[in-house]
Formats: sequence, C-alpha cells, structure tokens
Amino acid sequence: YSDWKWIQLQRWIVCMMIGISTGLIAVVINITIMQLMDLKMAVVEEAIIRCVKDRCLYVPLLLWIAMNVGIVSIAALLTVFVAPVAGGSGIPQIKCFLNGVKVPDVVRLKSLFVKVVGVVCSVSGGLAVGKEGPMIHSGAVLAAGISQGRSITFRLKTRFFKHFRNDREKRDFVCAGAAAGVSAAFGAPVGGVLFSLEEAASFWNQALTWRIFLCSILSSYTLNLCMSIYHHHPGDMAYPGLINFGKFSGTYEGFELPVFFVMGVFGGLSGAAFIAINHKITVYRIKYLTARFIKVIEVLIVSAISATIAFVMIYLNTDCKPLGEDPNVELQFMCNDGQYNTMGTLFFTTPEEGVKSLFHDQLGSIQPATIIMFVVPYFFLSCWTYGLQVPSGLFIPSLLIGAAWGRLVGICMNAICPDCDWTQDMSKYALIGAAAQLGGTVRMTISLTVILIEATGNITYSLPLMTVLLVAKWVGDLFNKGIYDMHVHLARVPILEWEPPPLSTNIHAREVMGKPAVTLKEVSLVSDVCSVLSDPRNCHSGYPVTDSEGKFRGLVLRTQLLILLKHKTFVERSAPGERLKLSVFRDTYPRYFPLSIVNVSSEEEQCHIDLRPYLNPAPYTVYEHASLPKIFHLFRALGLRHLVVLNDDFKVVGIVTRKDIWKWGHHPKDM
Amino acid sequence: YSDWKWIQLQRWIVCMMIGISTGLIAVVINITIMQLMDLKMAVVEEAIIRCVKDRCLYVPLLLWIAMNVGIVSIAALLTVFVAPVAGGSGIPQIKCFLNGVKVPDVVRLKSLFVKVVGVVCSVSGGLAVGKEGPMIHSGAVLAAGISQGRSITFRLKTRFFKHFRNDREKRDFVCAGAAAGVSAAFGAPVGGVLFSLEEAASFWNQALTWRIFLCSILSSYTLNLCMSIYHHHPGDMAYPGLINFGKFSGTYEGFELPVFFVMGVFGGLSGAAFIAINHKITVYRIKYLTARFIKVIEVLIVSAISATIAFVMIYLNTDCKPLGEDPNVELQFMCNDGQYNTMGTLFFTTPEEGVKSLFHDQLGSIQPATIIMFVVPYFFLSCWTYGLQVPSGLFIPSLLIGAAWGRLVGICMNAICPDCDWTQDMSKYALIGAAAQLGGTVRMTISLTVILIEATGNITYSLPLMTVLLVAKWVGDLFNKGIYDMHVHLARVPILEWEPPPLSTNIHAREVMGKPAVTLKEVSLVSDVCSVLSDPRNCHSGYPVTDSEGKFRGLVLRTQLLILLKHKTFVERSAPGERLKLSVFRDTYPRYFPLSIVNVSSEEEQCHIDLRPYLNPAPYTVYEHASLPKIFHLFRALGLRHLVVLNDDFKVVGIVTRKDIWKWGHHPKDM
Repeated sequence: YSDWKWIQLQRWIVCMMIGISTGLIAVVINITIMQLMDLKMAVVEEAIIRCVKDRCLYVPLLLWIAMNVGIVSIAALLTVFVAPVAGGSGIPQIKCFLNGVKVPDVVRLKSLFVKVVGVVCSVSGGLAVGKEGPMIHSGAVLAAGISQGRSITFRLKTRFFKHFRNDREKRDFVCAGAAAGVSAAFGAPVGGVLFSLEEAASFWNQALTWRIFLCSILSSYTLNLCMSIYHHHPGDMAYPGLINFGKFSGTYEGFELPVFFVMGVFGGLSGAAFIAINHKITVYRIKYLTARFIKVIEVLIVSAISATIAFVMIYLNTDCKPLGEDPNVELQFMCNDGQYNTMGTLFFTTPEEGVKSLFHDQLGSIQPATIIMFVVPYFFLSCWTYGLQVPSGLFIPSLLIGAAWGRLVGICMNAICPDCDWTQDMSKYALIGAAAQLGGTVRMTISLTVILIEATGNITYSLPLMTVLLVAKWVGDLFNKGIYDMHVHLARVPILEWEPPPLSTNIHAREVMGKPAVTLKEVSLVSDVCSVLSDPRNCHSGYPVTDSEGKFRGLVLRTQLLILLKHKTFVERSAPGERLKLSVFRDTYPRYFPLSIVNVSSEEEQCHIDLRPYLNPAPYTVYEHASLPKIFHLFRALGLRHLVVLNDDFKVVGIVTRKDIWKWGHHPKDM
Repeated sequence: YSDWKWIQLQRWIVCMMIGISTGLIAVVINITIMQLMDLKMAVVEEAIIRCVKDRCLYVPLLLWIAMNVGIVSIAALLTVFVAPVAGGSGIPQIKCFLNGVKVPDVVRLKSLFVKVVGVVCSVSGGLAVGKEGPMIHSGAVLAAGISQGRSITFRLKTRFFKHFRNDREKRDFVCAGAAAGVSAAFGAPVGGVLFSLEEAASFWNQALTWRIFLCSILSSYTLNLCMSIYHHHPGDMAYPGLINFGKFSGTYEGFELPVFFVMGVFGGLSGAAFIAINHKITVYRIKYLTARFIKVIEVLIVSAISATIAFVMIYLNTDCKPLGEDPNVELQFMCNDGQYNTMGTLFFTTPEEGVKSLFHDQLGSIQPATIIMFVVPYFFLSCWTYGLQVPSGLFIPSLLIGAAWGRLVGICMNAICPDCDWTQDMSKYALIGAAAQLGGTVRMTISLTVILIEATGNITYSLPLMTVLLVAKWVGDLFNKGIYDMHVHLARVPILEWEPPPLSTNIHAREVMGKPAVTLKEVSLVSDVCSVLSDPRNCHSGYPVTDSEGKFRGLVLRTQLLILLKHKTFVERSAPGERLKLSVFRDTYPRYFPLSIVNVSSEEEQCHIDLRPYLNPAPYTVYEHASLPKIFHLFRALGLRHLVVLNDDFKVVGIVTRKDIWKWGHHPKDM
C-alpha cells in the first residue's frame, strides 16, 4: 500500500516537472524569436532608410526575401527530413494520440527538437503562422519524455518512473503536457486543463484533473517569472503567456449583442471559407506534392511570396501618421519625417504585435483602407501556409484576420454614430471579430472560450465571447467540419467521434467485426505464432487465445508475443514454472522491434509457447448481438483498441478494432 | 433520419427553455428575498431607534427573534413534511443523481416548490445560509420537469419531448439544469458547465457540452436582463449572478504568493475543522433527531439563537464609524449621531452584503476586534446550520468566514508594513481568504476556480486563486473528505468514486457479485415472476433471463415486468405476435407502481409471460474472472446500474450492482 502511495507521489512530481519544463521551453522560444526578429528588422529597416533616399528599394526587398527564405529553409529542411510529424500545429496529431490512436513519432524527442527550432524559424521567417499551437505539441512531447524517465534518442535510461511505461499512464501525462502547453501559450491555465479534457477525456478523473491543473499552473508561473526577469521587472505578473492581448478596460452595452451576433455569423462564414480553401489546397498537396524536395520548395516559395506581399503592401500604403500615437513598430518608409507607415504596424512585425495593434490602437490610427489591404492578402496567405511542412500555429493568424475585420466593423459603427459613447472603443469589436474568426475556424468549444477570456484578462466580455463563439460554430458547422477535424479526416486517422453514427442501433457486432478472427491456442506451436505475426492481414495489436475446446481464454498482445519469441521462452527450453518478469515487458516499451529481427531456427519452430502466464484472462468482450452504439460507447469511454466478440458458447467469432467502428461513420464517398 | 434531426433540435429547444426558466426562478428568489429583508430590517431598525432612547432593547430583540422564527418555520415545516429531499443545499443529492444513483423525489416539482419557498424563508429568516447552492437543485428540477414535457403533480401531460422519457436523456438535461443553476447563482456560465461536467460527466460528449453551455449562458443572460430592469438600468450587464463580488481593481505582487500559500494552508485547516464539527453534529442528528417535530424545533432553536447572537454582537460592539464611509447598511444602534455600528454591516444584512463589505470596505473601516467577534460565532453557527432541514447553501457562509479572516490577515500585513503599496488593498486578502475557506470546505476543483474567477470578474487573481484552492484542498484532504462527500457518505448512498479502490486488481467479479443471481426463464410462469418481484432480497432493477439450457439471453427490467403484469400480456391471453408498444413503457416513466397494486388471480398465476420481445438481448456483461478495477471502470464510465456476470458456458453466475462495488471501498469500520 505504501508502494501505491509512492507511485501517487511520483505522478505529482512528474507533473510538476512537466509544467516547469514546458514553461522553460516557452521562454526559450519566445526570447529567441524576439531576438531574431529584432535582428532581422534592424537590418531591413536600416536598408530601407538608406534606400528610400537612394531609390534602391529592390535592395531591402531582396534582403528581406533572402533572410526570410534562409531562416524558413532551416525549418522546412528539418521538418521534411527529420520529423515530418512536427509539421503544422501538432494539435490534430495530439488529438489523435489522446483519442487512443497510435501516431508514429508524435511524442519523440526529435519531434520536440524539430518543433522548437522549426517554430522559431517559421515565425522569425515571416510566415503567416503563430508560435502558440506548436507549444501544445512541445508540452506533450516533454510530458511523454519526462514521464518515461528515459530517452531512447539520448540512450538515457533511469530507474525512475518505471511504473509509467504503458499507454494508459503515458496518455495521462501527455494530457498534462498539452495543458501546460496551452497554459504557456496563452497564459490560460484553466483553458489548458479544459483543452486537454475536451480532447482527451473519455473519462474524467478528478485526481488526474488536479495533476493536470497543477502542471498547467506551474507552466504559466514559470513562463511569467522568466519573462518578468527578462523584461527587468522580476516578480511582475504581467507575462503569463506567449501571447498577451494587452489590457482591455472597456465594457459593452446590452443592445450591442445583436451586432456581436452578426459578427459571429460572419466569423462562421469566414472560417468556413478558410477551411474550404485550405481543404482544396491540402487535397492537392496530398495528391501531387509528395516528393520531399518539392515540399521544401513549396515552403520557400510561400516564404518569398509572404515577404514580397508584405513589402509591396507597405510600399503601396499611403497612410502615414505622426509618430508617437502607436505603441508598436514605427517604420518610416516613404512617409515624411516624424511620421510612420501604418501598414508597417501590421506587416513589419510579429503577428502577435499586429494583433495587439489592431486591438488597442486608437480609433483613427489605422485607416480602413489599410486594414482591407492587409486582411485580404493575409487571409489567402495564411490559408496557403497552414499545412506546409513547417511547425506553424493557426491561432494567431486567425486572431489577426478576425481582429482586422472586427476593427473594420468598429469603424463602420463609429461612422454610423460618431458621437455615441459605445462606438469609441475599437478594442471590443476587434476582440469579438478575432473570437468569431477563430471560433469559425477551429470550432473548439468551452475550452476556447476560457482560453480567450484568460488571454483577454477581462471577464467583462465573457458573455459576448461565448455568444459569438457559439454562433460562429453553428454557422460554420453548416458548411464543413473544423479545420483540425478536416486535417485528421484527410489523414484517414481512425479517430472516434463523440457520438455513434446516427441510426446505427440496428447494426450489431456481427456486422461490424473483422472475421474470421485469428486465434492462438493456449499452448501454441512457435511456427503458428510466427505465421500469425508475419501475416500482414493480421497486424492487430492483440490476439484472442482459446483453449482446446475453442473457448475464449484471454487476450495476448502482439508485443508480448514478440518478446516471448525473442527470449525464446519455449516450453521445451525452460524449467517448469519459470516465466518472464514484468520488467522485461516494461523495459521494451514503447519501441518494439519487428518480427524480422527475431531469428527462429527450424528446430525452434517445433517448440511450444505457453501463453497462459502472460495473457489477460478477462479483457472487455462483447456478445455478438451487441449493438453498434453499445460497442462505440465501450471504445470511446474506455479508450479501447480492440474488443473480442464472443458467441453464446464463449467462442471467439471475431474481433472489433477501432478502424472497424470508424468505417461505419465514414463511407468512401465522404473521403 | 429527419426524425433524428428533429429530436436533436428538440434537445436544443429544451435546453433553451431550461436556461431561461432557471434564470427566471433566480430572479424571483432574489427579488423576494430583497423585499422581505428590507421589510424585516425596516421594522427592526425602527424598533431599535425607538428603544435606544427608551432603554427597551429587549423589544427589538424579541421582535427580531419572533420574525426570524416565524419566517424560518415556514421553511422548516415545508421541508420536513412535504419534501425532506429539499433540505440542505441539494448539491450532494444532485451529485448522487448525476452519478447514476436513484434518489427518491429529488427532481420532483414539489421539491422545487419547497426549495424555492424554503430558501427565500431561510435566507430572509436570518439563518447562516446562502441562496446559491439551492439554485443548483432548482435548476436541476426545472430541467427534469421541462424535459419530460409533463408533470405528474399537475396532471399535465403533453405529447412533446416523449423521446426524452428515459434515465439517460433525463440525466443529460439535469446536467444542463444544474449548470444553469450555477450560472444564475454566481454569474458563472463557464463555471456552471464545468460543475456539471465534473460531477456528472462520466463521459464527456461534445454536443451535450454545447447544449449545457447554451443553457448556462441563457440562464445568466435572463437573470441579468431582469435584474437590470428591476434596478432601472435596462441593458446594463452588471448583474450576471445572484451574488456579486463587486468590482476588484487591484493587483498583487509575485512575492505575495507565499502569503497566499500560507492562507491556503489555513483555509484547508479551517475547512477541515468545519467539516469535522459538522460531521459530529450530523451523526448526532442521524442517531437521535429522527422525529419530524424535533427536526422542526431544532431549526427554530437555531433561528432564535442566530438572531440573539447577531443582536448581542451588535450590542457589544463599540466600534462606531462616521456615516458615509461604508456603502452598505448604516445601522446607528448605540453609536452617536452621524455614526454607524460596524458590526451591523456584517450581521444586520444578508450574508451576500456582508461578503461585499468584507471585500470592499476601506482599510480601517472595520476593526479587527469586530471581525473576530463576528467570525468566531458565525463559524460555529454555520457549522450547526448546515444539515438542518431547511434549504440552505454553504457557499456564502464559507465565503463570509473566509473573507473575514482573510481581511484579518490583510490588516496584519498592513500593520507589519503600513506604508507598502501592496498592503493598502484589503480586497485581495479577503478574496483569497474566502477562496481558501471555500476550497477547504467543499474541495471542488477546477470548476470552483472558474466560478470564483467569474464571480470576481477579474482574471488578475486567477493564479493566486488556483494556488490557494489547490493548497487548501491538499491540506484539507489530509484530515477528511469534502463536506458534500461527507454528507453523501453518511447518507450511505452508493456513489462511485473517481478511481477504483487501491489494491483491488486481484479481486475478481466472482468475489464482488451478489449470488446466486435470480434469473427468469424466457417464457416464465406468472407465479414465478410474482414471487421474484415480491421477494425484498431481490429488489434489483433488472433480472437476467436464461433459456432452457440456462444460457444467458438478455436482461429484463423490473419496471418492464411490472408493466407486463399490469397489462396482463400473458401468452394464453393474447394473439400470437401481439406485443406491448414502446409508448406504453415510456408513458409510465418515471413513476412506477408497486407490485401490490397488480392483481393477479390464482388462475392467471398459471399463465406464462413471453419475455423475449421485451428483453435487452445484449447488455454489458462481464466474465467471472474480470478484475474489480475493470468492472469499476465499466460502471463509472458508462453509468451502469447492474452488470451480469457470466461464466465460460455463457451461464449467469451472479449480478454486480452499484452497491456491491461501493461496499469494497467502504468497510463498515469507515462508517
């Protein structure tokens, strides 16, 4: 019993470590990006200042393109050649992992490395991406790494945390890591917990929730502490997340709710359009852009085009304002002395700073024309960018687009009623627009609301935010699925939805299951085992075991069989009663070897393996007449991978896998 | 399929109705209490003013006691004689209901009536209770009522929502109702959703979450709108909940976190002490105070004592302050003209106003001595009050106690460093103290954090709040369980915890199950059915049915058997192929009749019932060697009530009920 207490304590310790290290990773990413951006911008700005006089504007343009392409190419090369799974935001991959699907390499240390370096490069390289989504993936990898107490990449092996070397425990820690990632990204510890629970929790466990919560808080604390030291205000609690929406102080009137409602509708439409365009691009990518070098080249093209568009837009913009009005970037460009180019506050900076400008700059400091010139190309750029083979977040681009059109709405409202009190404050419209766009694109639910409220740092807007997110989701759902679901779907991952497919009550286990099921005998011939394992049609993760009468006796895992074969624990070779220790199975987790490295001589093939000591004698099973919703709920609630189907003689008639169920909701025509 | 869509739409409609009506109930409760309190206070104050001069202070005291006892007696009589289930906060009962336990009468309309009238009376009657907890119960009852589209109390019966007449659907709606209740009580829509999910969601369903969310938002909107109209500021969004913590504008320094940590520890200790004392009182009540009239008398005694203590404390208090400093009650009492008695701001008002005073009154406006004189008796009073047979919430008393000692901590900090910036603001210490006390008492988790953040209306304090709640919970858990769990435990309700009991992996279904299981034949003799149903030892909600070989064929519910008997659907009496319609079963839900009202003649006893058309052919079953954790997870994740245990001949060897599992975690010595 004291052992049980000790394991409990270890769980807490691991969660603390995950939280702190995720916070530290966020600090590293944040500071590196800031330094790189400052460096890059300084070089380009210097060239611009020189060239406005000398009429050699192609020089800073080329310089900008060259630097961006150079930086981004690091991200692209690493992603394509080292860890393709690190591409994109990582949220779909983590979703699948937490849903119970095995995604290769998703929580490996090399993915973390590529993710961190890649996101620094892709953000600094001026792509229309954010650094927030990748934090979630980073947190998840850290969690998986720390909880196992060892790393295969570094050949590091400790005796700690050996109890956590199984799928269930690992998944719980990955939950905590993802929460810590959200927490660090948005300064939203509660939002982080909710995100994890929403995506992962087939089963809400209170103790687990508390651990995730602690992990999430520590991550935000760590980031805050480090950033406050970096900004020379140690102890100041103003830097809870990577993105900071700045201080909202306004309020809203009840009669503005219909305006927000309409903005929600527009956000849903705009998000659906974003997804539809991105869907076409992704399908094209899957079909035609398969070679590795083409993927890299696509990234470089997008990078060059992004830089060009930004430059051209700043060049074309004639909206100059006197210095000092705007707290952010002050790029003079073609403006007179003492003035700055307003487009520069949007394009010549990180997207985070752009969002802040749109939120907080005073009414009139950015012209509507400037905003339109910014938002239209940026919309298409970010559509094209998401899904490229670089680590990239979708939150910030969505917020930026939404804040831009939200601000436009605000300017319109002000034009309608220039003297009203409630039309003076642009920040609420920009915020609502940002929420609507984000809600229409990612379609997350309650966790998104909480994340936005926490990032806003102002509870006043919670009712409008919820309304807008709900409306945007409804409207968007009329047209297509959320962008993450769309990507998961296109990747053909057998993820289970929230509810069984409609009208499936009359479908029974018999129709769903794969048959005939491959079964093994309690004491099997080695050659039989080998032939089952080597047949690619039977590549399940578990096999039912039957006794001599054909009755079901338990389930043995593919991995167990491989280990038994490798250790040659044959009946003929070992003393009676001798059996492999649990630690042998645990140490091999999670990287198993293929059958091909096990050498079985023809003499050994005639030996027998006694599976009885190793099999799981009472796994979850189901009767052949059980209905599909019943099976679905079992899978979803308990996170199963396979379910043995029995008839009323207790004989195995088939086996239902996650894919079998998934197929029922996804007819080929949907693909 | 269009039918399926239509049912989906109905679900949304029902949720909207639940949200709006919960908001309206909250409005009614709120306004009635305000009016009653104003009336009562006016009478007492008038008497005090008259009697301070005439030295007849016993007159207002007696007047106060008489009024309080009079008002409270309504609550007590209603609760004790009409609906005992409406006593207390209702949160433990709703917890049990959502956990899958049948609690008699808990969601009946008469309980709602008693709850609403009772909470108005107990709060107006000056008991140390809040009106927030009961809102949760009220919302839940409304949800259950509305979703069924009929009321048995009112003999109202509509054709609407007939698809929702089963336990599963009803539970989902009750979830939504509870969330709407929290939302209305604290102005915390997100917190409400989380509360429901935390207590109920063995299985988080995204569509359900959205509906709960909508319901929760609408409830808060409705309350806000109505209250803004009542306060003559229509459209003002400042009244989201029954309790309003007022506006927090301060901030905190990073180095204050250790102070908050210590406050968390103290909150945990104080909460644990509260629970320990309340435990003793509750055990005493269960043992000795069983007669109904004694219960009523206890309530009246507590009411009289509460009034006396309040009066004496105000009388003893010599701390007078000049008028105008304090925004709340201004009771002169024995003070000089132009001054008011500070104790009056705490005792001579609703607890909600007391909390607000402690949060927001300026430094120095309440003396430490006054606070101590208030908090010590109030602590014991609220200990005694919780568990009385009146509707009563625990949140506000806990917040009040915590805010009081939190303010004391603040005063101490100010004494240590009188000129520091960060010790000028009392509100943060009062808030942290309130959170610590509440966290130490109810031990809720993430939902409580969110509720407090939403009620505070200030996100700045989220990190300290989380820290304090976490610490308070940890410290409290060292000593005892949370107060709700304690009450559930004392009521011996077989509620399932979050995790299986430790060290239970070697316990198998065989040892857990009840045996021998009572089974029925597919075609049973009526007399056999009757004898099974009438045997009190077999009072299960379902019975396994076997065929002639003894193989398991399905499960038939007790209620189905009763209905079949009542309709006399015997093989000998009906045409072949004739069977009872689904609607017959649905219409009888949820109030079933006892066996005694079914008259079976001795001739009919020789008839047969064919159960085959009605039984559930493939319920969840388990193999006799399945381990307890496995069974536990099935029950917890799928909300089961019973599970048939089969052997490898597919024969029934026993049946596991919720109580069987519960017993393993609760040995008699724990009781």
